[in-house]
Amino acid sequence: MLKLFYAPGSCALASHIALEEAGAKYETVRLNFANNDQRKPEYLKVNPKGRVPALVTDKGILTETPAILAYIAQSFPTAALAPVSDPFAFARVQAFNSYLCSTAHVNHAHLMRGSRWADEPSSLEDMKRKVPKNVGDSFALMEAEMVEGPWVMGNSYTICDPYLFTLSGWLERDSVDISRFPKIHDHHKRMLERPAVKKVRAEWAAA
Amino acid sequence: MLKLFYAPGSCALASHIALEEAGAKYETVRLNFANNDQRKPEYLKVNPKGRVPALVTDKGILTETPAILAYIAQSFPTAALAPVSDPFAFARVQAFNSYLCSTAHVNHAHLMRGSRWADEPSSLEDMKRKVPKNVGDSFALMEAEMVEGPWVMGNSYTICDPYLFTLSGWLERDSVDISRFPKIHDHHKRMLERPAVKKVRAEWAAA
Repeated sequence: MLKLFYAPGSCALASHIALEEAGAKYETVRLNFANNDQRKPEYLKVNPKGRVPALVTDKGILTETPAILAYIAQSFPTAALAPVSDPFAFARVQAFNSYLCSTAHVNHAHLMRGSRWADEPSSLEDMKRKVPKNVGDSFALMEAEMVEGPWVMGNSYTICDPYLFTLSGWLERDSVDISRFPKIHDHHKRMLERPAVKKVRAEWAAA
Repeated sequence: MLKLFYAPGSCALASHIALEEAGAKYETVRLNFANNDQRKPEYLKVNPKGRVPALVTDKGILTETPAILAYIAQSFPTAALAPVSDPFAFARVQAFNSYLCSTAHVNHAHLMRGSRWADEPSSLEDMKRKVPKNVGDSFALMEAEMVEGPWVMGNSYTICDPYLFTLSGWLERDSVDISRFPKIHDHHKRMLERPAVKKVRAEWAAA
């Protein structure tokens, strides 16, 4: 059975929702970042990067959100979570998810994880000050150029949707007002109504 | 015909090599970052992000290296550049490329592009100081945990290889000694001998 390692508040939310939407049989293991669980030797055996998500499959362990999302889409074709056999349409899905992981998530990460890239307290404060602008710019670009609506790719719900939902859920912490982005704001509210999202959020919120 | 927008020194190298390895018919358009070509209105119509690579196809424009690489692999199946119909094997390829775009490339970007994430000169200097350690750590992890050898995924050459080659080509600028990573060093030298790589490098080096 598939096993997903996650931590509340992390981008593993996207993979968790996708497993649920796919109708996959899976179990979860919850890590607590406050306890630094992701740096403990037993977890580093699962994912030497010390990050979540990690998905244990019967063939081995997968990491990296875009890869896990595409794996879920390809492994559960009846759920139709991505146009995996149309190279162009699939590449558009992957381009969106790649932008989230390499640009939008990275912009967000400079709020609390600036010590990955600099050491001085003044540098970390400088990075924090720039987060609202950088994250806001990323979302303005997605709103204008990438998100078609009602779902990211238009009328079909895909693996882009739980990933966008995950990052749009961080906007308040990033001091960015989601109402600046009407399509993304509407998307976020619509996601909250999906049974898969409700179920996963209930598990994450549980003590 | 496919058309690739690139700039010398950029990560578009991976997509360019992959097109060549795939035997694709394509043309290229060269941008000059020193002239800020990527920020000019005519290019922002191609890619509103103001980045390279961008690949123009007969169905529309694709961006983001991992998406373009997977598109090339899927569109030219006889070149066998990725195990696209094996969900687990393909996810491993994508996880590697996702790590490159979201972690390794981002670590490198703090050398010259720190102003994306902070404003003060002292912050940019602080980021620069940390680049050799961060990039070195990324490559140490890839050497130990990800790169199988002789190619990234083992005996099969895939879309991971030109992407790793692109980033390992930046190590000298990052003040990281590639000889610390024997498999990756060997990989880099073997890549330099491939006809596709020689052809693309000759084009990039031309005035």
